[in-house]
Amino acid sequence: MSMNSFGHLFRVTTWGESHGPALGATVDGCPPGVAIDEGMIQHWLDKRKPGQNKFTTQRREADQVKILSGVFEGQTTGTPVQLMIENTDQRSKDYGDIMDKFRPGHADITYWQKYGIRDYRGGGRSSARETASRVAAGGLAREAIKQIAPNVQITGYMTQIGPNKINRDNFDWSQIEQNPFWTPDAQAAEDWAAYLDGLRKSGNSVGAIVEVVARGVPAGIGAPVYAKLDTDLASAMMSINAVKGVEIGEGMAAAELTGEANADEIFMGQNGPQYSSNHSGGILGGISTGQDVVVRFAVKPTSSILTTRKTITKSGEETEIITKGRHDPCVGIRAVPVGEAMMACVILDHLLLHRGQIGENRGRIG
Amino acid sequence: MSMNSFGHLFRVTTWGESHGPALGATVDGCPPGVAIDEGMIQHWLDKRKPGQNKFTTQRREADQVKILSGVFEGQTTGTPVQLMIENTDQRSKDYGDIMDKFRPGHADITYWQKYGIRDYRGGGRSSARETASRVAAGGLAREAIKQIAPNVQITGYMTQIGPNKINRDNFDWSQIEQNPFWTPDAQAAEDWAAYLDGLRKSGNSVGAIVEVVARGVPAGIGAPVYAKLDTDLASAMMSINAVKGVEIGEGMAAAELTGEANADEIFMGQNGPQYSSNHSGGILGGISTGQDVVVRFAVKPTSSILTTRKTITKSGEETEIITKGRHDPCVGIRAVPVGEAMMACVILDHLLLHRGQIGENRGRIG
Amino acid sequence: MSMNSFGHLFRVTTWGESHGPALGATVDGCPPGVAIDEGMIQHWLDKRKPGQNKFTTQRREADQVKILSGVFEGQTTGTPVQLMIENTDQRSKDYGDIMDKFRPGHADITYWQKYGIRDYRGGGRSSARETASRVAAGGLAREAIKQIAPNVQITGYMTQIGPNKINRDNFDWSQIEQNPFWTPDAQAAEDWAAYLDGLRKSGNSVGAIVEVVARGVPAGIGAPVYAKLDTDLASAMMSINAVKGVEIGEGMAAAELTGEANADEIFMGQNGPQYSSNHSGGILGGISTGQDVVVRFAVKPTSSILTTRKTITKSGEETEIITKGRHDPCVGIRAVPVGEAMMACVILDHLLLHRGQIGENRGRIG
Amino acid sequence: MSMNSFGHLFRVTTWGESHGPALGATVDGCPPGVAIDEGMIQHWLDKRKPGQNKFTTQRREADQVKILSGVFEGQTTGTPVQLMIENTDQRSKDYGDIMDKFRPGHADITYWQKYGIRDYRGGGRSSARETASRVAAGGLAREAIKQIAPNVQITGYMTQIGPNKINRDNFDWSQIEQNPFWTPDAQAAEDWAAYLDGLRKSGNSVGAIVEVVARGVPAGIGAPVYAKLDTDLASAMMSINAVKGVEIGEGMAAAELTGEANADEIFMGQNGPQYSSNHSGGILGGISTGQDVVVRFAVKPTSSILTTRKTITKSGEETEIITKGRHDPCVGIRAVPVGEAMMACVILDHLLLHRGQIGENRGRIG
Repeated sequence: MSMNSFGHLFRVTTWGESHGPALGATVDGCPPGVAIDEGMIQHWLDKRKPGQNKFTTQRREADQVKILSGVFEGQTTGTPVQLMIENTDQRSKDYGDIMDKFRPGHADITYWQKYGIRDYRGGGRSSARETASRVAAGGLAREAIKQIAPNVQITGYMTQIGPNKINRDNFDWSQIEQNPFWTPDAQAAEDWAAYLDGLRKSGNSVGAIVEVVARGVPAGIGAPVYAKLDTDLASAMMSINAVKGVEIGEGMAAAELTGEANADEIFMGQNGPQYSSNHSGGILGGISTGQDVVVRFAVKPTSSILTTRKTITKSGEETEIITKGRHDPCVGIRAVPVGEAMMACVILDHLLLHRGQIGENRGRIG
Repeated sequence: MSMNSFGHLFRVTTWGESHGPALGATVDGCPPGVAIDEGMIQHWLDKRKPGQNKFTTQRREADQVKILSGVFEGQTTGTPVQLMIENTDQRSKDYGDIMDKFRPGHADITYWQKYGIRDYRGGGRSSARETASRVAAGGLAREAIKQIAPNVQITGYMTQIGPNKINRDNFDWSQIEQNPFWTPDAQAAEDWAAYLDGLRKSGNSVGAIVEVVARGVPAGIGAPVYAKLDTDLASAMMSINAVKGVEIGEGMAAAELTGEANADEIFMGQNGPQYSSNHSGGILGGISTGQDVVVRFAVKPTSSILTTRKTITKSGEETEIITKGRHDPCVGIRAVPVGEAMMACVILDHLLLHRGQIGENRGRIG
Repeated sequence: MSMNSFGHLFRVTTWGESHGPALGATVDGCPPGVAIDEGMIQHWLDKRKPGQNKFTTQRREADQVKILSGVFEGQTTGTPVQLMIENTDQRSKDYGDIMDKFRPGHADITYWQKYGIRDYRGGGRSSARETASRVAAGGLAREAIKQIAPNVQITGYMTQIGPNKINRDNFDWSQIEQNPFWTPDAQAAEDWAAYLDGLRKSGNSVGAIVEVVARGVPAGIGAPVYAKLDTDLASAMMSINAVKGVEIGEGMAAAELTGEANADEIFMGQNGPQYSSNHSGGILGGISTGQDVVVRFAVKPTSSILTTRKTITKSGEETEIITKGRHDPCVGIRAVPVGEAMMACVILDHLLLHRGQIGENRGRIG
Repeated sequence: MSMNSFGHLFRVTTWGESHGPALGATVDGCPPGVAIDEGMIQHWLDKRKPGQNKFTTQRREADQVKILSGVFEGQTTGTPVQLMIENTDQRSKDYGDIMDKFRPGHADITYWQKYGIRDYRGGGRSSARETASRVAAGGLAREAIKQIAPNVQITGYMTQIGPNKINRDNFDWSQIEQNPFWTPDAQAAEDWAAYLDGLRKSGNSVGAIVEVVARGVPAGIGAPVYAKLDTDLASAMMSINAVKGVEIGEGMAAAELTGEANADEIFMGQNGPQYSSNHSGGILGGISTGQDVVVRFAVKPTSSILTTRKTITKSGEETEIITKGRHDPCVGIRAVPVGEAMMACVILDHLLLHRGQIGENRGRIG
């Protein structure tokens, strides 16, 4: 019962702080025989890496992953895979205010209230830097998925920054890799660039919504009633720093639908059931339908901003704080590869679980 | 690693089908010395029980709970508590269509695709009837919480039915028990009654949003980074039948806020930190702040409706279906006590975990 | 993390006290499509049932199992199977001494020291009666194993009572069902009968050693390094009431062997590797070799005896105790079907795990 | 559900292979505020380190531990502690025979049969080198125990090598640190030295028995019925490489005792119950009595010996093998600090669990 682990059979434990010697992911339960090298994982870390454009934090970290165990002659062996990322940007600096004051909207105060001790260097364990470990584990999960369900494709993208949503009519998968926001709406990308520029200059920040889709997931994975595919996805996404809401398919808007509108009608296609729509987000009763699995999550704005805010000190004195330094005007951008990594881990985990539950077979229709 | 269990130290496993002999909850990890009897649990089951007014299904179940173990001379002993509810309404009936056809929007098809076997009687394990087990476990959790954190108060209520939201200006805690919707807005209750009446007559159904608040939760419970309090709440709520979205505090709307607006400022009160607002929903970095813990979830409309929908049979033939029988026009109503029960289980679990992690102490401010 | 559960994918939670309304096992993770009815499980409960001969306790319990969930039309559905046994022998009686005094060698005192509350009726949760739940779960596991590895045969037998060991030269599988001790040595059975008769009359008790063998287990199940097949077997057997030692293969005697003597030499048979001997007990590095899996455990004598022993009361006063009532002169006898049940649960669990880890394939030799 | 983890709240995951870049332990659930540095852990690693005398393998490893996370300013923070040991002795060498042939009595063949892939360098994951990770985690556990139960003292020692047992009359705690066998019997140490010298010269090996005692453990820790203190100890010890048997208190010899002899009589001492004897090994019903917790385990002889043995190759051909290189004539010697480490981890885990279950209180006597 580790508090820093997730997954049932594909079990990932992340460790490490923002400014300690290193951080990483201990991955247990990866099947043997998965072809993997550091480059394959590095690919995804590079996608998440900060400092790539003016919309993400200017902290420069090489984020070089090292595989310390579980891989032999280019293949996983079935034993734990240790993925380590050394922190190169550990420069001694003046943390000044942060050592004694709590940043409003930040985990500073609750870590202190829980543990009575706090690694104040860059947020310690509560830093978004922890998500690098997730992305590394997700890179491994993607390669393992290829072995079991080669048609699965996992893609994340932004659908909203602040009040600005994409226009679904402009949705174009090929646009996602073409802009710094990983958004499928080219027009939105342009508008957002201008909007964020303004925010960044004013030292403010804003929230965002990220959508992650898994295509090609076979029907039948997931499990009632507390290890549902959607339950595990909700848990996975809500565990990402700054996430405040998670939706499957219609999500919160399902409240507004009638039963007639919400019921995805079923037809018989050549390769099994087909649906008239996908209000369910590819999941019914916690089990995949074979449609696209669609999850969405909201990322709150970062609490490290240049505006003065009222707060208190460790000794309980009221004061004010302003957080100087390196900031993301919209941390939601870098949450895209993180959301993809979590989706990959959950899908792989349930592919493995399904085998453990049922073997290689599934119930047949037709 | 049970797929039908939730919780870390307060561990609940639910079992049973809609039309089998019985269903219930096996509860492990309840502390010893909690005063409990069947009446205390029955109280909450009665709240959830169907057939209490015209807005909930007319199935009549006594839903009488029996305590089969773990309680001696009116107190829990620390050993597993078995809570059983016998199904009295097991009448043989004509399931006709449902045996062979899949209901659109229902778990019928995915259970079949996963298991190749399906208990078609009233939905079997995927029936909302499973939530009676949760409510029973939640009743026990509420009594155990009193022993550890007597100030905790857990209250659920509806904030939206279909497109109709409550007016937060009308919010009145005392109204919640006064109407069949457990809503704090008396005006909304009136409007909704008329609205639902229409829906019921047309054989249609609609979704809803439920909010659950835990007041008096001490600061410091929860745990980074995958057993966060919000992660476990997301998982708990998403595991409830028909839930498609979960929000903490601002939820999905956090995407629209700036960092300045979102940062709840901190002051020093007589009993510790006070906040200017509660955008965080009482949780920062996965750990409670001492403010109200606020979670919200959307329930989709029931898929059992009187409108004809297109579907397929087990043998893959295209056909149509219409679901006659007992229906809830808005299953969200009965989800209120279920959401409360899940909140109670999660809060108790994290109170116990905190003791295991830290003992009775917490970090002090001031 | 339930303290009353065991197993990874085939997860059994037992519940219930010696003299409460009922006890049972909540079994999660049983594969779907296993043909099962109450009679198949009753068969094994009858084997364990007390009062069958003069060497086991005269408590008369019908021990009738009821399947409350997870089975539909004679097959498991993949959802939790609830197995309940009602306690029929709940007669009100004078517990007298036991309410206030602690029986030496019994869990009375430690339950009190841990929980500050104790169900003194017949030992409550610490009663050997709990093992009925295990036997029920084991009966289900046996049927599920048939689906996955039909060649597996699980057999337990006694090899020692008090100082009296069987003669391995007399080992005859067909004798096991022919005597009240389930021993493969007919001569030992005769000698033990006389020996136990004497013990019973003097109101004393004695320990025993039980051996359980699983034949036909495929090579490759198990998992390094903390969910080893032998680790899980050690845990399973040590969890049985009164067990004080567990051995795999050579067991404690492995200490006396040289490396030369201990190394089972390997040859190539028609169906894979063959071994010159089985010092390893069918397990190397925590993984099955394909040989017989051999586990042995020692059961201490029951502490409920007719000899006066010194003890203390709950209030700390020194006194004496003598335990009248129904006793087993050798509880080890009834531990045979319990050991078999635990073996069945562990083997099934690892068969399922192996599928989750590797799929249906294994590494090939030759 | 990690296969490479153990513990409930103090959760240790070990990773790494014998000849990979590094190995280590990811430790989650260590309480905050434990004073720790690398030297405190190094102390125990040095005790286990090979090549310290002629009775242990001559492989020279620095075994320098690095703390990569979870410690800040000399104290644990409550977040995961990553303990890494780099492999310095990774020299390229000719593995020759071992690449294709299976060593009798070794996990070579079962790893291959399970995974279809095998890291043949020095045993890979199945190497006894994995136990260095355990010793590191145990060093941390010892420091954490001091915070919660400062009177606990954990000591391991050898009681038997091959057929040669210690004489319990010679038992002297102060001798344990005075000889290369960590045995409390000075005479045995002398005899064993001569005996092992002969074995080493003949290229043979032999088994051993190790006993580990925890003194000062408070009454009341442990939990029925599958997370018993003895169950978890059995599991912990059996998971150590080459262990084939585990005993608590009387162990296998309990089979030979009568109920009268086995029942430790209870008296009232100044600080609570006192016992006339400790046949139970300090555990009744899975819960500690407050007496010494006594566990014993048998280690089989290493399978890497200089005698020619018959075996097969990966392609199934019959052949012979002789294992040259660095060997321990008695691996049981180095198992002493490993057994201590496992005891420390289990005791700490149950101290934390007890707090989660009961809080700081226990039931009182007198």
